[in-house]
Amino acid sequence: MMSPVSGQPTAADDARRPTNVILFIPDGFGPASATMARDYLRKYEGVGELAMDSIQTGSVRTFSTSSRVTDSAAGATAYATGVKTYNGAIAVDTLQRPLGTLLRAAEGRGMATGMVVTSRITHATPASFSSHVPERWMENEIAAQQIQSGADVILGGGMRHFLPSSAEGSEREDDRNLIDEARAKGYTFVDDRDGLMNLSNGPVLGLFSMSHLDYEIDRDPAVQPSLAEMTDKALSLVSKDKDGYFMMVEASRVDHAGHGNDAAAHLKDIIAYNEAMEVALKHARRDGNTLVVSVSDHETGGLTLGRDIHKEDGVDGVYAWHPEVLHRVEGSHGAMFDAVSARYDHLPDGATATDSVDAVAAVLSNMAGIDDLTDAERASIQNSLGSYDLNYTVSDLIERRAVIGWTTRGHTAVDVNLYAYGPGVENFRGNMDNTEVGDILASLLNLDLDALTADLREETEETQKAEKSKTDATSGPSPGSE
Amino acid sequence: MMSPVSGQPTAADDARRPTNVILFIPDGFGPASATMARDYLRKYEGVGELAMDSIQTGSVRTFSTSSRVTDSAAGATAYATGVKTYNGAIAVDTLQRPLGTLLRAAEGRGMATGMVVTSRITHATPASFSSHVPERWMENEIAAQQIQSGADVILGGGMRHFLPSSAEGSEREDDRNLIDEARAKGYTFVDDRDGLMNLSNGPVLGLFSMSHLDYEIDRDPAVQPSLAEMTDKALSLVSKDKDGYFMMVEASRVDHAGHGNDAAAHLKDIIAYNEAMEVALKHARRDGNTLVVSVSDHETGGLTLGRDIHKEDGVDGVYAWHPEVLHRVEGSHGAMFDAVSARYDHLPDGATATDSVDAVAAVLSNMAGIDDLTDAERASIQNSLGSYDLNYTVSDLIERRAVIGWTTRGHTAVDVNLYAYGPGVENFRGNMDNTEVGDILASLLNLDLDALTADLREETEETQKAEKSKTDATSGPSPGSE
Ligand SMILES: [Zn+2]
Ligand SMILES: [Zn+2]
Repeated sequence: MMSPVSGQPTAADDARRPTNVILFIPDGFGPASATMARDYLRKYEGVGELAMDSIQTGSVRTFSTSSRVTDSAAGATAYATGVKTYNGAIAVDTLQRPLGTLLRAAEGRGMATGMVVTSRITHATPASFSSHVPERWMENEIAAQQIQSGADVILGGGMRHFLPSSAEGSEREDDRNLIDEARAKGYTFVDDRDGLMNLSNGPVLGLFSMSHLDYEIDRDPAVQPSLAEMTDKALSLVSKDKDGYFMMVEASRVDHAGHGNDAAAHLKDIIAYNEAMEVALKHARRDGNTLVVSVSDHETGGLTLGRDIHKEDGVDGVYAWHPEVLHRVEGSHGAMFDAVSARYDHLPDGATATDSVDAVAAVLSNMAGIDDLTDAERASIQNSLGSYDLNYTVSDLIERRAVIGWTTRGHTAVDVNLYAYGPGVENFRGNMDNTEVGDILASLLNLDLDALTADLREETEETQKAEKSKTDATSGPSPGSE
Repeated sequence: MMSPVSGQPTAADDARRPTNVILFIPDGFGPASATMARDYLRKYEGVGELAMDSIQTGSVRTFSTSSRVTDSAAGATAYATGVKTYNGAIAVDTLQRPLGTLLRAAEGRGMATGMVVTSRITHATPASFSSHVPERWMENEIAAQQIQSGADVILGGGMRHFLPSSAEGSEREDDRNLIDEARAKGYTFVDDRDGLMNLSNGPVLGLFSMSHLDYEIDRDPAVQPSLAEMTDKALSLVSKDKDGYFMMVEASRVDHAGHGNDAAAHLKDIIAYNEAMEVALKHARRDGNTLVVSVSDHETGGLTLGRDIHKEDGVDGVYAWHPEVLHRVEGSHGAMFDAVSARYDHLPDGATATDSVDAVAAVLSNMAGIDDLTDAERASIQNSLGSYDLNYTVSDLIERRAVIGWTTRGHTAVDVNLYAYGPGVENFRGNMDNTEVGDILASLLNLDLDALTADLREETEETQKAEKSKTDATSGPSPGSE
């Protein structure tokens, strides 16, 4: 337990401190996401519980300094640093000054560290543990900081921010090849599942896609590793360090599927998260020294299971929802649009709008098991042909049949579930502020984030001073500077 | 802790058994409801936490035998009896046989018992603790069983089911006056706040309205007691019993406001629930022998905080929600419609549709602080004039400004928050099934629900046999019955 005065664990409690911490962040995973996945697994796998169900200890409130509805940058910064900040901020405070993070402080204490994600590794959540920038979209800068962060395991997507601008698909605006720079620092670089599986020593930089990894529902298991496989490999690497480890695992694309109101992709990425949790909990149960905490940064999509019948005639569904509709879906919306595009390419010259609608209908039949389109639905497909609205038209078709709903393509403010297992678990209880989670993790690992913040700030100020004097030197003495 | 084999608390744990249990059921209170109320209190009262925030221990899954989305009858029956049943069932199993309830078993063990609700006392939740019927709408029968249940404190609404059919506003179809019958059994009857406040001894039957009590936002504090006042009085009465007490407190109308998509009414009824929780926790902290558990039966409305901007131009709101919009609302939708009706009555002969829209607009200005209706909004008011749709038109006007949303006028499947404090609290953790909550409460109070169920079933079978033989006697021997 914490001392009520200092907030620090007391000496008597050292026995309950973890040696290792695995922090899971299922991005965009709200309370309804948990129910959805459990209901699905109960029906299709006969499993009545999620891996994390028995270890839920409470919930977390997620508001940021700039809004009651946080983004992933402010949300992850709260966990990484114990400090609330504005939406968009990557491990910087409201004055844009750098904040010490759990990962960098753990690195500084000689622990092994790792980040495993399914988005670009430069995306907001992993960025907030391993870099400091005032704006989350500065992903080229984030990548450059990440290979300096000292993390022993870096697994995810986002190669486009590591390749020089000359390389195909690169998003960099300079000639730096961060993969070569990482190799020079001792990293092994891998870019596919086999490369990862064959590794037996870190440090490792694994980038399996130019941008995000594929949704689980679309993933080719021969090419990209699953989140569970990455987690297992990462744990086998970092657990060699006798000083303990800090590992952040993000189920990143649960959030992206929420933004796209893509229920089947959301569901399957949650199941992938569940499997990665199983791997982590197995490790933790075996060694007894590992604290596993899982907490989302926010909910995405306003997902609810059950949906109005009044506004929408013909859907008999207020007191039901139907996982079987999602079970029939075999690809993300994106994969369906790729299939639609392929069919368009084969439409004959002079194809009519009806032909185009037929092409979409064929894909819905093949990939979503939908064979009962109404005339009204065909009309709304026709109306959204060729525009991004087609995504939400398809979403509606599926969700009306599943009797589920979304209220937004963004995030919501609802509290998220808090799960914890292992030494120190008693500190995670009740409804907590997101910053408390970061503070307690730092305290349990004896990490002094304030000291690191002070160092980082001094470093920044010196850099700024140096830059300023360089500017002064090249531009000559400014008026009155003597 | 429970013995892993029998599920019963072991002898060594007797010290951790509660003498008293207060079970709160905030009907229709979902995870987003908690966030909404906390965000509101942080802004308007400078209070960063709800009374129950620090005692959240997990969450509860709520599906029934007939649907993934439960109703209040099946949901409350799970808590009252530890058994899953079908939507609509009041403390009967899927074969419609009666199930022993916590309240009746506690009564049988000589404990004091009570029910405090803001709906009709005959509504699904209290009914499931104190009666057994196959269909929740059999409220006349429920009322008759309730005055036989032995409960020492019965507080709520629903007088219409207790008055003989001859009385004004009665819904009974017989001449029974259940209030007189209760008096004959020793109950004091009260029908207003003063009557309740002046009581110093039970048993008491308090019915403060013909149907439900008013929403908190509309309540006249001189006439109807608040949920906190009823809870406080009830606790002062039942806590006189040295054998301990079992009390069920329902914040019933949180659910009704969800069905009506009435955000301000939902919010204020949650705040009333929060205040009643404060009262109960104060009692529990003082005596040290009281277990307080709070758990909703299900979510209602699919409430989310944050709402789409894509479908609804002009609302800048994905990453925000605005409690100030709800703060300006001074009545439930129902109260607003009453005010609109009053204005209609004063419209001159030959009033136009525009006059009617103006009447609604004037009420929205006076009671909801909305002075910026757009032409499109005025048109949708005009389209829904005179129909129940006006309710949802008003809901939309308010919710779009608050940047919140609802997906349904019914319930949803999302897990609900679990809160617990006091002796035995360690049994309530993780994500639990709703039936486990009932089972554990029974076990902690040494109540044998199975034995009570067997007794009730025997009673029912004897009654049915007696009725059958009566029928046989009056209709004569059936063919071949010799
Ligand atoms: Zn997001
Ligand atoms: Zn309801």
